[in-house]
Amino acid sequence: MGHLDGGHFCEELQNGVQLEDLKSLAMQDAVRVLLQGLGEDVTREGLRNTPLRVAKAFREGTRGYQQKAKDIIQGALFPEAGLDKSIGNAGGVGGLVVVRDLDLFSYCESCLLPFRVKCHVGYVPSGQRVVGLSKLSRVSEVFAKRLQEPQRLADEICSALQSGIKPSGVAILLQCSHLRFPSLESVLLDSNHEVWSETAVTSGTGIFKNVDSNSWGDLISLLKFRGFSIKKSPTTSDCWCPSQISPSPSAIACTTVGANLPMVSAVTKIIEVLGEDPSRKELLGTPARFVHWLMSFKNAKFNMKVNGMGFCKNKIDPLEADDREVIGTARQMHIELNLGFWSQCEHHLLPFHGTVHVGYIYPKGIHDPLPKPLLQSIVHFFGFKLQVQERLTRQIAETVSSLLGEDVMVVVEADHTCMISRGIEKFGSNTATVAVLGRFSTDPSARAKFFEGIPKGSGGR
Amino acid sequence: MGHLDGGHFCEELQNGVQLEDLKSLAMQDAVRVLLQGLGEDVTREGLRNTPLRVAKAFREGTRGYQQKAKDIIQGALFPEAGLDKSIGNAGGVGGLVVVRDLDLFSYCESCLLPFRVKCHVGYVPSGQRVVGLSKLSRVSEVFAKRLQEPQRLADEICSALQSGIKPSGVAILLQCSHLRFPSLESVLLDSNHEVWSETAVTSGTGIFKNVDSNSWGDLISLLKFRGFSIKKSPTTSDCWCPSQISPSPSAIACTTVGANLPMVSAVTKIIEVLGEDPSRKELLGTPARFVHWLMSFKNAKFNMKVNGMGFCKNKIDPLEADDREVIGTARQMHIELNLGFWSQCEHHLLPFHGTVHVGYIYPKGIHDPLPKPLLQSIVHFFGFKLQVQERLTRQIAETVSSLLGEDVMVVVEADHTCMISRGIEKFGSNTATVAVLGRFSTDPSARAKFFEGIPKGSGGR
Repeated sequence: MGHLDGGHFCEELQNGVQLEDLKSLAMQDAVRVLLQGLGEDVTREGLRNTPLRVAKAFREGTRGYQQKAKDIIQGALFPEAGLDKSIGNAGGVGGLVVVRDLDLFSYCESCLLPFRVKCHVGYVPSGQRVVGLSKLSRVSEVFAKRLQEPQRLADEICSALQSGIKPSGVAILLQCSHLRFPSLESVLLDSNHEVWSETAVTSGTGIFKNVDSNSWGDLISLLKFRGFSIKKSPTTSDCWCPSQISPSPSAIACTTVGANLPMVSAVTKIIEVLGEDPSRKELLGTPARFVHWLMSFKNAKFNMKVNGMGFCKNKIDPLEADDREVIGTARQMHIELNLGFWSQCEHHLLPFHGTVHVGYIYPKGIHDPLPKPLLQSIVHFFGFKLQVQERLTRQIAETVSSLLGEDVMVVVEADHTCMISRGIEKFGSNTATVAVLGRFSTDPSARAKFFEGIPKGSGGR
Repeated sequence: MGHLDGGHFCEELQNGVQLEDLKSLAMQDAVRVLLQGLGEDVTREGLRNTPLRVAKAFREGTRGYQQKAKDIIQGALFPEAGLDKSIGNAGGVGGLVVVRDLDLFSYCESCLLPFRVKCHVGYVPSGQRVVGLSKLSRVSEVFAKRLQEPQRLADEICSALQSGIKPSGVAILLQCSHLRFPSLESVLLDSNHEVWSETAVTSGTGIFKNVDSNSWGDLISLLKFRGFSIKKSPTTSDCWCPSQISPSPSAIACTTVGANLPMVSAVTKIIEVLGEDPSRKELLGTPARFVHWLMSFKNAKFNMKVNGMGFCKNKIDPLEADDREVIGTARQMHIELNLGFWSQCEHHLLPFHGTVHVGYIYPKGIHDPLPKPLLQSIVHFFGFKLQVQERLTRQIAETVSSLLGEDVMVVVEADHTCMISRGIEKFGSNTATVAVLGRFSTDPSARAKFFEGIPKGSGGR
C-alpha cells in the first residue's frame, strides 16, 4: 500500500493541475501574511476567501507566462495572392494591415498594479501570406499578461509577431494608462490629483524600424481616423509608474522594509510563483514598493491622520429631533458633487476609485452647509481602508447624518480594477451605489432633485 | 485485450472531453455541408480549418448552456451590516447598487448571428448581504451565451439574480444592437441602409416589478449620468431581428428550404449539438433563415446580379501606358469616401462590414471620374462573398486600376464580428487594410494627400 500511495502522490505532483494547486496554496499563504501585516482579521467573512481570490486573480492576470506566441500563430497563416501584374503593394505582398483599439491590461512590474493598454498593431505582409486578424490580439495578450513595462511590452509583441509571421515589418503602438494612486497625505493636500499617468510607446521591425519612415506615417494616418492623437507624456518613460516618482525608492527602503520584512518576503514569493525571477533588475524594488503602497490602507494609521486633519464627530452639534420639526420650511437641500475617493477592494486587494456626491437637508440660517474640505476628509477617511463600495457609501452617509441631521443621500460612482483585470474584463463598466437616510428614503421628489443636480457624464472615466 | 479496449472506449465516451470532441466533429460535418452548399471547395487552404473554427466559435459563444448561475453566486454573498440606528436604506439593507455598461454579446435565436448588448444590472440588497460585483456580470454572461431574444435574456438574468441573491428586487436594462445585414438587392437599391437594428428591454422583480416605480426612476437617473438615453426602437420587439422582417418567412420557406434541405438539416444539427431543442417554437424557422442568409454569399449568384447592374470591365477603356505619359501634369486625384460594404469572413462564417475609401489619379479632361454607383457596385461585388479583408482590398484596387489606369489606392475599414463574438471579445477594435498601386506605392505625398481627404472619426462604428 505504502508503495502504491507513494507512486500515486508522485504522479499527482507531476500532473499540471496538482502543481498549480500547490502554487496557489503558496500564494494564498503569502496573501495571508499581507493581510495580517495590515492588522486585519483574516478569518472575518469578507476576507476569508480573499487569499484564494487574490491568488486566482494574479494567476489569471499573468497567464502569459504559460503561453507561447509561436503556438498561437502556427496554423493561422493563410496564403493570400498578391497583385496581379500591377505595380504596388496589396493583399499578401505589402498592403498595410492595422488592427486598431485593442483593449488590454497588463501588470506593472514596478508596483504590481494593473495598467490599461490601448494597443494598435500593424504589419505589412510578404511572401504571399497573411495572419488571422484575431491572432494579432492573442499574441499581444500573451505578453500583456505578464509583469511588464510599456516599452518592453511593445518590443516583445513586435518581436514575436515578426518572427512568427515573417512579414516586411511589424509596428506596435501602445497607449498606456497607469492609475496614480495617491498617498493619503498627497490627496489631502492636492485636491486636483491627476488620476492617470499616461505614456505612449512604439516598437517597429523591418520597414517600421525607423519611426520617421513613410510606413509609420501611413499607419499613424490610419489611427487618426479613429480619433487617435499622441499626447505628450507627463512623465518620462523612466518613471511612468507613480510608485517610482514619490516617495523615493530609498525612502521606501528606509521606512518600510525593515518593519515589514515578512510582508516583503511574501510579495517576493508571489512574484516567484507567477513564474518570474524576483532578482531580475527591474523587479528588485517591487516587493518593497508594493508593501509600502499596501500599508497606506492600514486602519490605525488613518484614524490618527484624519483626526489630525480636524475631522471630529462633535465639531458641529447635531440637531435634536424637536428642533428639526420647529424649523419646518426653513430647511434647505445642499449638494456637494464630485468628491474624489480612493479605496482598496477587500475581496481582491485591487484599487477602486471614483467620485462621491453628497446631498443633505440642513436648517438654513441656523447652520451653514458643511465645509467641502470636511466632507472630502470624511470621504478619504472611509476610502483609505480595505473596503467594499456598499459599505463605503453607508459609512459616509451615516457620518454626515451624525453631524447635521438624518436627511442625507450619498451616491458613489466607482471604477473597479477588479472588473477589468480579472476574468470578466469589463473595461467600460462602472458601479454606482446609493444610500438614502431620513427624508430621502421616503420622498422620491427629494431624491429626484438630488439626481437632477448631478451633471450628465459625471460617471465617466 | 478486446475486453480491456472496450472498457477503455466506454470510459472515454463517458469522459466529458471525449464527448465534446464528438460534438465538435458533428458540428464540423454540418459546416462542411454548408460550405459545399455555397459551392465552395472545402479543401482550399483558407477554408480547410473553417469547420473547426466555426464549431469552436459556436461552442464558445453558447457556453452558457453548460453553466449554472447558482454555482456562480454561491460563495460570493457577503454579510454587510445595514444602517446603524438611522431611518433609510444603505449597505446591506436597501441601498441601490447598479453596475452600468457591461459589454456582452449574445446569439440571436432567430438568425444565429451575434448581437451586442449593453447591460445594466441593478439590485437592492436585503437581509444584510451583498453580492460580489463581478458576479452580476458573470451571471449575465451565462444567459447571454445562449441562443436568445432580448426580452427573454433580460428575464432570465433577472430571475436568476433574484433567486440567487434574494434581494428586495432586481432590475435589468439591456440595450441591444443587431447587425442588419442587407440583401444584395436591397443594398444596391438603398444606399442609406441602416446598419443596426436597436431595441431596449427591461425586466424587474420585487420593488422593480413595476417599471413606473420610484425604484426604476432612481436607477434610470443613475444611468443618465453615463449618457444613457432610451431611444425609441425602430422595430417592435416582435421582429427586432432583420431576418424576420424581410423577406417574409413564408417566402424563405418557398424559395430556399426545398432546394437546400441538406443545409437546413445541417443547421438544425448545429443547434441540437449546442444543447438547444431545435423544435422549440422560436427556433423552428431559424435553420431556414440562416441558410437563406448564407446563400446570399453564393459566388455564382452575385456574378450574374452585379453584371446585371451594369458593372462591366470594358465599360471604360483603360488608357494605354503611352497615353498616360503624354498627358503628364493633366492627371488629377479623385477621392471617393465611405462606400459601404458587407462581407462574410471565410475563416469564421461571420459577417464583417464597414467602409471603403478609394483614391485614384485620372486624366482630367479626357476621362470623367468613375461614377460613384459604379464604384459602389464594384465594392458590393467583391463584398458579397466568403472573403478576407486583405483580399477584398486588393480586388477592389485591381478592378479600379483595370478601368482607369494603375494609380489607385484603397483603404478598407471594418468591424469584424469574429473579433467580438469569439474568445478575444475585443468590442472596440477595428481593422484597416490598404492597397497601393502605381504612383501611390512610390510617392508618399500622394498617399498623404489621400489620407488627409479621409475625415477624422470615419473609422468609427
